[in-house]
Amino acid sequence: MQCEVLFVMSDPVAIFTFADALADLARDIAREHFRSTTAFELKADASPVTVADRAIELAMRVAIQERFPGHGILGEEMGRLVGDDQLWVLDPIDGTKAFITGMPLFGTLIAYLEEEVPRLGVIEMPALGERWSASLGVTAFAGNPCRTSGCLSIDEARVYTSSPDVFAAADWQRYERLSKRAAMRRFGGDCYMYGLLASGHCDLVVEAALMPYDYMALVPVVEGAGGLMTDWDGRPLGLGSDGRVVASASAALHDRALKALAENS
Amino acid sequence: MQCEVLFVMSDPVAIFTFADALADLARDIAREHFRSTTAFELKADASPVTVADRAIELAMRVAIQERFPGHGILGEEMGRLVGDDQLWVLDPIDGTKAFITGMPLFGTLIAYLEEEVPRLGVIEMPALGERWSASLGVTAFAGNPCRTSGCLSIDEARVYTSSPDVFAAADWQRYERLSKRAAMRRFGGDCYMYGLLASGHCDLVVEAALMPYDYMALVPVVEGAGGLMTDWDGRPLGLGSDGRVVASASAALHDRALKALAENS
Repeated sequence: MQCEVLFVMSDPVAIFTFADALADLARDIAREHFRSTTAFELKADASPVTVADRAIELAMRVAIQERFPGHGILGEEMGRLVGDDQLWVLDPIDGTKAFITGMPLFGTLIAYLEEEVPRLGVIEMPALGERWSASLGVTAFAGNPCRTSGCLSIDEARVYTSSPDVFAAADWQRYERLSKRAAMRRFGGDCYMYGLLASGHCDLVVEAALMPYDYMALVPVVEGAGGLMTDWDGRPLGLGSDGRVVASASAALHDRALKALAENS
Repeated sequence: MQCEVLFVMSDPVAIFTFADALADLARDIAREHFRSTTAFELKADASPVTVADRAIELAMRVAIQERFPGHGILGEEMGRLVGDDQLWVLDPIDGTKAFITGMPLFGTLIAYLEEEVPRLGVIEMPALGERWSASLGVTAFAGNPCRTSGCLSIDEARVYTSSPDVFAAADWQRYERLSKRAAMRRFGGDCYMYGLLASGHCDLVVEAALMPYDYMALVPVVEGAGGLMTDWDGRPLGLGSDGRVVASASAALHDRALKALAENS
C-alpha cells in the first residue's frame, strides 16, 4: 500500500495530468471573476488582489491535499504548508494589476518541485485561452512542443520587463544599460513574457523583486523550450533566491545578459 | 446625382457600416500574419514594422478610395492623400512592438474626421477578437454601449501609460509625479488602454509623442463612453497637436490630471 502510494506520487504522468487539471480549475474560476467588477482592495504591500485570487488558491490547495496529502504547498495568498520533499508552488493570479484593469495578461502559475528543484511548470492564461506546460524537459504550447528563438546577441534581442517599478534604483540603471543596447524593449506582461520567450516571440526577460511563486513555474517552461533562467548572478533559482531573474533564448545570450547586468560603469 | 452622392457620403450610418467593414478587413489580414514569423525590420525612426502593417493600410486605402473617392486619407505607412473635408486617419497596426513579440495587444485604429474633428473611431483588436466602435456620441463594445468608471480623483485612479520611453525627460518627471499619487499604475498596452478606459476598467491614460493616427480614433471612443481626451494643456486633439495626450474617466479627474501634469515642483 505504501509502495503504491509512493509510486503514484512520483509518477510524472500522474503529476502532469493533475497539474493540467489544476490549471483547468484555475481558469474556470478566473474567467468567472474577470471583468465582473472594478472593485479592488489593497493588501499590506499595496498590491491589489481580488476575490478570484483567494478562490483560485483555495480550490487548488484543496485539490492538492485531496490527491497528494503528504505534499507541501507554498501559495501567494495562504502561505506555506510544510510537507514532504514534494512541493507545489502556486500563484493563483500573477499580474493582479492586469486582472483588475480588465487586461487579459494575468496568469495562474503552478510549479511542482522535488527537493526544491522545479520539475514541472504551468503558465495558464485564463482570459486568453492559452497555456504553456513543461515537464520532463519539454515545453508544450497548444499541444505542440515550442522552442525559443535561439537569439544569440543583445543587439538583436527583443527585451521585456514588466515595469520600472519592480527595480531598485541601482538595478534599474543596470537594466537600462542592458535594454538600451537591445533591438527593442517593451514593458508589461508579467508571466506572459516568459511564455512568449518560450515560443520564440521575444528573446530576453529581466525582472527583480519576484517571489518564489512568481518565478518557480517559469523555470521549467523557459528551459524546456531551450532557454535559460537564473538569478542575475547566474545561479539556479531556488526558494531562497533574491528575486532578480533573467530568462534568455540561448546560453550565449544569457551569458551576455548576465555580463551586461554585472558591469559597473 | 451630385445630391445623392453627397447624401451617401455624409450619412453616419453608411460611414459607420463602412468603418466596421474596414475593421473586419484589417482583422483578417492581421490574424494571417500574427505570430507567423519572428522576422522584423527597422524603419528610419527605429520602430519595427511588419509586412502586415503595410498590407492592412493598403487594403483599407483601396477600400476607402473605391467607396468614397473624394475623401482624404492619412495613414501611418503611406502618408497623406489630400481630399475634401472628410478625412480617414488610419493606423494599421498600433503597437508594432506588441505585434512582433507575439503579444495580442496590438490594434487597428480607424478614425473618420469632418473638418478635422473626429466623428467616428474604431479600436479593433484582431488577436483578441474585441472591438470598440464610437459614433454619434456613443461607444459600443461587444454590441453594447460602454461607460467609463466615472472615477473622480487621482488617488483612486488606475493609471496607464505604454512605456517610459515615450516621454521626454521633463515630461517623464511630470508623469512620475502624477502617477505615483494614483491608486496604481501599470505599463504597456498602446491603444488597448483607451478601450479599457472606455469600458471602466482603468481610469486615466497619459502618453506623449503620439502621432495623429495614434490618437484620432481614440477620442470618439473615450468621449462616447463619458470620458475626456485632450492634450496636456486641455486643448482638443487635432491634426496639429503636439502628441501629448490625457484620457480620463470623468471631467473632474481630467481637470485634476491636467493640473498635476502642469505643476512645477
